[in-house]
Amino acid sequence: MKKTLLLFSLVLLLALTVLAGPKYIFLFIGDGMALPQINAAQLFLSSSFEDAVVPKLSMLKFPVQGMTTTYSSNSFITDSASAGTAIATGKKTNDGVVSMDPTLTEAYPTVAQFAKSKGMKVGIISSVSLDHATPAVFYAHQKSRNDYYEIGLQAVTSNFDLFGGGTFNRPDNRGKDRDLFEIAVENGFTLIRTQAEFEALNSVDGKVIITNEVTPSSGAMVYDIDRKNEFSLADITAKAIELLKNDSGFFIMVESGKIDWACHANDAAASVGDTIAFDRAIAEAIKFYNEHPEDTLIVVTGDHETGGLTLGFAGTKYVANVPAIGTQKMSYEAFDALLSSQKSEGKLNSFEDLLSLVEDNFGLVATGRPQGIPLDDAELARLQEAFGYYMSGSVPKDSRTYTLYGGYNPVSVTLTHILNEKAGLGWTTYSHTGVPVATFAMGVGQELFAGFYDNTDIGKNLFKLLN
Amino acid sequence: MKKTLLLFSLVLLLALTVLAGPKYIFLFIGDGMALPQINAAQLFLSSSFEDAVVPKLSMLKFPVQGMTTTYSSNSFITDSASAGTAIATGKKTNDGVVSMDPTLTEAYPTVAQFAKSKGMKVGIISSVSLDHATPAVFYAHQKSRNDYYEIGLQAVTSNFDLFGGGTFNRPDNRGKDRDLFEIAVENGFTLIRTQAEFEALNSVDGKVIITNEVTPSSGAMVYDIDRKNEFSLADITAKAIELLKNDSGFFIMVESGKIDWACHANDAAASVGDTIAFDRAIAEAIKFYNEHPEDTLIVVTGDHETGGLTLGFAGTKYVANVPAIGTQKMSYEAFDALLSSQKSEGKLNSFEDLLSLVEDNFGLVATGRPQGIPLDDAELARLQEAFGYYMSGSVPKDSRTYTLYGGYNPVSVTLTHILNEKAGLGWTTYSHTGVPVATFAMGVGQELFAGFYDNTDIGKNLFKLLN
Repeated sequence: MKKTLLLFSLVLLLALTVLAGPKYIFLFIGDGMALPQINAAQLFLSSSFEDAVVPKLSMLKFPVQGMTTTYSSNSFITDSASAGTAIATGKKTNDGVVSMDPTLTEAYPTVAQFAKSKGMKVGIISSVSLDHATPAVFYAHQKSRNDYYEIGLQAVTSNFDLFGGGTFNRPDNRGKDRDLFEIAVENGFTLIRTQAEFEALNSVDGKVIITNEVTPSSGAMVYDIDRKNEFSLADITAKAIELLKNDSGFFIMVESGKIDWACHANDAAASVGDTIAFDRAIAEAIKFYNEHPEDTLIVVTGDHETGGLTLGFAGTKYVANVPAIGTQKMSYEAFDALLSSQKSEGKLNSFEDLLSLVEDNFGLVATGRPQGIPLDDAELARLQEAFGYYMSGSVPKDSRTYTLYGGYNPVSVTLTHILNEKAGLGWTTYSHTGVPVATFAMGVGQELFAGFYDNTDIGKNLFKLLN
Repeated sequence: MKKTLLLFSLVLLLALTVLAGPKYIFLFIGDGMALPQINAAQLFLSSSFEDAVVPKLSMLKFPVQGMTTTYSSNSFITDSASAGTAIATGKKTNDGVVSMDPTLTEAYPTVAQFAKSKGMKVGIISSVSLDHATPAVFYAHQKSRNDYYEIGLQAVTSNFDLFGGGTFNRPDNRGKDRDLFEIAVENGFTLIRTQAEFEALNSVDGKVIITNEVTPSSGAMVYDIDRKNEFSLADITAKAIELLKNDSGFFIMVESGKIDWACHANDAAASVGDTIAFDRAIAEAIKFYNEHPEDTLIVVTGDHETGGLTLGFAGTKYVANVPAIGTQKMSYEAFDALLSSQKSEGKLNSFEDLLSLVEDNFGLVATGRPQGIPLDDAELARLQEAFGYYMSGSVPKDSRTYTLYGGYNPVSVTLTHILNEKAGLGWTTYSHTGVPVATFAMGVGQELFAGFYDNTDIGKNLFKLLN
């Protein structure tokens, strides 16, 4: 009897879940974000470890949580194109491929395209360029993620309702082709290209592409740690909800793409900043969910882990002090630019000049200084070696040097390594890793996202819920 | 209507869950085991990464999976005593404390003691010594995990039905006190102390303590990778099920304690070996579950992560080849012993002598050898430096040397580092880390173990289900 009732209630629950289906779907993808990235961000927000008891990040409050494997068709350690394809289509492919099969002959239908075909409005948001691998897999089918122009062309000729965040990486294919923004206008897109236009925007007739006049390297939004007045990922998520809300429902994908970039560079402060910014975007979706709990599903996942981040370092043993990374005032990217401008202006000549910049921007100081985190002799030696390479403009190409700098600016990466180590954070690689990612779900159909499963199951579940 | 039905079925499900309660409870604790350890083991079992699609480990097939935070009352990075106390009692304490409150005045009741008071039989199994922190927290209350004799005394004077695995670390308190085995017999325990006795055992009148004549360092069972004819963790788990099965139910805790020790030493092969051995013990519980699905709950968790293991290394970039660690023929512990015996027998004099041992036991070879994984010049230099320290018997005490060797035998740890790196595995510390662990549940009450929660919730849930 007990068993029968249990079975009955389970079947009832399942039937109701499948029959209902969410009208509003949010899919949040943290690029390079697995548990270490999430927990580093949570700990950064805690003034002391006791606060860690309260899961302050919105994503950690979700009722359902699963673990997701990320391997691709041809590699245990995936790239973002194959991982994104798995999430967007429910099918595996090879690294570098955008929503096509491994033989490069078949285009995989995507959940975003399927949602559009069902009459829902579709928005694609990314903090990196709109033609980057993760946003691309939702609207494009290309043999290579590097075919930026061809990918962008599929965006501006699509029937999707909103693209926003970064801009296009190669809008005119390096002068070889027509400007994508021109083609977008021909295809009915309204262009929002300045912060003022963004702020004034509260409704749109037809389709819209939202970018920003501030377009740093590779067409991405700035790191949140470096952001001034530009719209944040939360701002554009809120705007998308406002613009796309309608009785036929919507599918909104939001990617935080620079968690990955920061972790490639082993910069915990930039990674934590963008993870928190991502969580604030998720909080906008939760606000909407609270108004429409019977019609909304929010899924949050990562596409893979980047950097081999862990919350423990040999030198600091059992002590972790993640908030210490707060002394870093800008991302490695911004510090690279600062070093470059200081050097070209003739203001960076000696190691002392560097130490002054380091004190101002990383809070790390040589002995004898009253304030700041002291650098010991070994750390000063590491920094001095890196500074030598930087000033000479020539970094050796051997394996030791790769392990030290990973092809990044030797000074910046040495500084983030030293500061991260002092905070008890360790890195093992400049590439992705194969550890599973966490997936969180809240709302209609959330049950489907519990347990230990593959990234293709996320796509399959979304198709199931849309059907 | 839809909402009402949904709510109704949820409430029904919850009520049935709470009312039922499992009669047979298994709690498996992988010491130092988080997702990287689990996934390294899974990948080791896969001959190629494609096989990773099939979750071969039993624990990855569990229907419910959650993530668990591990911090203690006084540290973000926990030790095993405080983490075990949280799991066994549902309450936080300070590092080093065994099931008492942080002020060391109050003994916390444990789920094992509560199960016993309800008339269930109780078994405590560990691959390390029976008085080690993790088994101790289920039956003892002590101010310090280092009070091995006092802890062991609480075991042999307890009313628990079975202790087994390793032996006692200090059975006579270094000659100062009465032998714990004598006291055990006075208190009604039957002693099983040889493999032959173990194999002949199929029923017991009263209480039993099962150890083995092979007792390596610290009273622990040998690493599974070094095991010959001694009983495995799966063997003793199966034996405990056979002996404790009764109509009033049982509570069996099984700890795999040397996953942690292997990860402290940064030895992936030994960690993977013990993780697989742990999974085989879990498979014994699943066999029992399949015969008693309406009465059984199995919970699998880790107490914390150790070593900062990740599945990616700077030098190998996007390539992970975990099965490569299979060329390691014995644990660092066994290799330490081999080096020591070779040295004292006068057979280890030159670097060439060492290379011969390395080829035989790690599959790593200097250039020019036809078989094996070649060591490059940088790796040979690392090994040569470590060998110099080992032969001189003196390792420098600076931070660089600590980062290199962590206080372990410099030769063995350099070898596991090199082999692990070639397999695409990275380590960041010789201590524990603060990354959350995975928890898996199967059977009656499994729903309580979904989501993102704290290690104290495991203890609280077990109390709830026992009540």
